Amino acid sequence: MTHIWVNDQLMNRNEAKIDAEDRGYQFGDGVYEVIKVYKGNLFEMEAHINRFYRSADELRIIIPYTKDVLHKMVYDLVEADQLNTGHVYMQVTRGVAERQHYFPDEASATFTAYTQVSDRPVEQFEQGVKTVLYDDIRWLRCDIKSLNLLGAVLAKQAAHEADCAEAILHREDIVTEGSSSNVYGVKNGIVYTHPANNLILKGITRDVVFRCAKEQGIEIVEEAMTVEELLTMDEVFFTSTGAEVSPIIQINDTIIGDGEPGETTRKLQQAFEAKVQESITI
Amino acid sequence: MTHIWVNDQLMNRNEAKIDAEDRGYQFGDGVYEVIKVYKGNLFEMEAHINRFYRSADELRIIIPYTKDVLHKMVYDLVEADQLNTGHVYMQVTRGVAERQHYFPDEASATFTAYTQVSDRPVEQFEQGVKTVLYDDIRWLRCDIKSLNLLGAVLAKQAAHEADCAEAILHREDIVTEGSSSNVYGVKNGIVYTHPANNLILKGITRDVVFRCAKEQGIEIVEEAMTVEELLTMDEVFFTSTGAEVSPIIQINDTIIGDGEPGETTRKLQQAFEAKVQESITI
Repeated sequence: MTHIWVNDQLMNRNEAKIDAEDRGYQFGDGVYEVIKVYKGNLFEMEAHINRFYRSADELRIIIPYTKDVLHKMVYDLVEADQLNTGHVYMQVTRGVAERQHYFPDEASATFTAYTQVSDRPVEQFEQGVKTVLYDDIRWLRCDIKSLNLLGAVLAKQAAHEADCAEAILHREDIVTEGSSSNVYGVKNGIVYTHPANNLILKGITRDVVFRCAKEQGIEIVEEAMTVEELLTMDEVFFTSTGAEVSPIIQINDTIIGDGEPGETTRKLQQAFEAKVQESITI
Repeated sequence: MTHIWVNDQLMNRNEAKIDAEDRGYQFGDGVYEVIKVYKGNLFEMEAHINRFYRSADELRIIIPYTKDVLHKMVYDLVEADQLNTGHVYMQVTRGVAERQHYFPDEASATFTAYTQVSDRPVEQFEQGVKTVLYDDIRWLRCDIKSLNLLGAVLAKQAAHEADCAEAILHREDIVTEGSSSNVYGVKNGIVYTHPANNLILKGITRDVVFRCAKEQGIEIVEEAMTVEELLTMDEVFFTSTGAEVSPIIQINDTIIGDGEPGETTRKLQQAFEAKVQESITI
């Protein structure tokens, strides 16, 4: 039996029910996080929790727990589900209130969290993936990890239908990020990626990769690329909590480099893998 | 006791519960409509139902009822609640599925619908309202009446905090629409409003107002205005299912015209009122 937190109740998954007037259900008025679990160890837990509070704060949603309490709730959930490798999904919404657009005076936030078993995509790490380009039609606060995900959903569906792992989004001519990942190009050993502004989510994995790069002496430049520039990079890769560091070997019909994961990508994968192994303490 | 449809079950409102993995709750992956009820009569029902199917279709969500069946369900709901004046809220989501961005193979849509009692804002019709300007940060498919409403929520909240009835959205310098309404300017008796493209919702009330204007010999030009142009219009008004035709007498600190509802607005209000009265048959 798997479990779910609904507010401060840890219950059996199939007992959890949400109100039809929860603002998450009517406005997408909430934020979320996905935290990776490796052999029972929560990876970059503190960074995810911090971002969860930051996203909520930007929307003025009050998470009704301290960070310490939330940390313990997530830990208890992983233990209750005896999760080995997978992830924790958690979200908080502005809560239940009679429907009106502006914030209700009295609603209190609805918190939910549960786990999913998921293997690491090791084949993808080795072979790389194919991707498609897709118009970035999302709103202008992509720095908030909100539940308004239709732009990402439509992009991922386009990738899925093209038998691709990810869609690379571009706003007009500028590459922003993947539908649920950050995207990087490598030229002459230097890594380029979109600056962390309102147009992209500042990935936790992105932060880890920045640290890895620094340790490896690899330069990362936060500079937006055009689609044309991306297609002519020596290497392209993407990162996310689930994809970790995954090479991109094809974008639409264009083969990237020689169609194999590149040297810089490999170095960053190895450095990231070391961080994963370091995190496994139990 | 008020009622709610949850799929094909009409139940007591407090029995309705939604799954935590409904895609409406995790992705805002759904669409909605609000239909006005005047003395038990559904106003512009067919147009709302048609738009509901159109929005769903754009997202490839399959509404599991024919339009005739849906019409009857809405009618039964209004009757069950003995609703006199108010509105029907209905939404459909892509349904419940294990969380992943792309469309699930097997999910079937979740339909919910319920009524709310709401008086017509007659004082607002007479006196007009104050409004604020707000950046239009929404996604680029505002023609779909989707549940991804955070951009509208934040705008409406800004209006609410400024003691204003509505926020007028502008993308860079171009006025698009209100946070939950269409916006119009009148200059020398000619009405201007943003063309019905991907940047605005093509309002049902907007369509009715277009018909009213035609009947009254008032010209409407579908042409976007700049913020500066809007502020110097002779009259400004907004329309929505709830606001009907409501004058705008102030935008931020700028008084519109002489600070009173204008002549063209009045004519359109009267013509709209006639349509409302015509619709009342029971």
